[in-house]
Amino acid sequence: MNQQALLDYLYAHIPLSQAMGVSVQSLEAGSVTLAAPLAPNINHRGTAFGGSISTLATLAAWSLLRVGTDTLDPLPRLVIRRNTVDYSQPIEGDFTATAKAPGAAVWDRFLETLQQRGRARITLSATVQCGGVAGATFVGDFVALRMV
Amino acid sequence: MNQQALLDYLYAHIPLSQAMGVSVQSLEAGSVTLAAPLAPNINHRGTAFGGSISTLATLAAWSLLRVGTDTLDPLPRLVIRRNTVDYSQPIEGDFTATAKAPGAAVWDRFLETLQQRGRARITLSATVQCGGVAGATFVGDFVALRMV
Repeated sequence: MNQQALLDYLYAHIPLSQAMGVSVQSLEAGSVTLAAPLAPNINHRGTAFGGSISTLATLAAWSLLRVGTDTLDPLPRLVIRRNTVDYSQPIEGDFTATAKAPGAAVWDRFLETLQQRGRARITLSATVQCGGVAGATFVGDFVALRMV
Repeated sequence: MNQQALLDYLYAHIPLSQAMGVSVQSLEAGSVTLAAPLAPNINHRGTAFGGSISTLATLAAWSLLRVGTDTLDPLPRLVIRRNTVDYSQPIEGDFTATAKAPGAAVWDRFLETLQQRGRARITLSATVQCGGVAGATFVGDFVALRMV
């Protein structure tokens, strides 16, 4: 799945991503960066709305997992169970959310568990930035379920 | 601030609320319920997208705080610092988020601290439901800052 295919998938299946003006800034092994313009995501203070920040980070983490399991057959169902977002700085412009895969040992165990049990849990983090400065951090617990 | 005034405020200042089709279902002392239709908030599984669930709960909690501090002069600035969302059940239809004020003792201390120090912190909860069944719970830490 390349950048355009990921964006097409998000726009087709999660309309909020389109309303937010999300774009895929980079997609490589173990890292996905999504971007969003400020205007459709602004709040009453002229900064990025917390809901938009949390949502962009959720989309980045979900995309990382989606891309990382893209070659599995059958394709697993990916469900978010829990997330925490810390908003450390106001975000005053266009912003990005970068999700990075955990270390290879964690990732390999996740895939093995999924293969063996049909179900596996993984915790993914994402950092939301504006102009190179971190504005929020996201930690989410996801479950992958083999679809039968 | 009545229901219509709250909705007008949200739509004017947080455009994502309009993209999500948010409406104000009830607004009373100590409780705010916002609603959202499934269609603009759907995900790849045909259920409500986690980002939309988290965002509706954030808006409900923020609205509760906004309405609860509406008579203060000057009107404080309200900032979200942190939130956690637990997604317990898939949400398969239109959904609501209800934020309820904490007990009177907590609320009164919050207002006193804000008045005395110009800054106060409060934790607010919201429950996201579909057809009377809870699908997610939200807990958020907010800070109110006296604007000078």
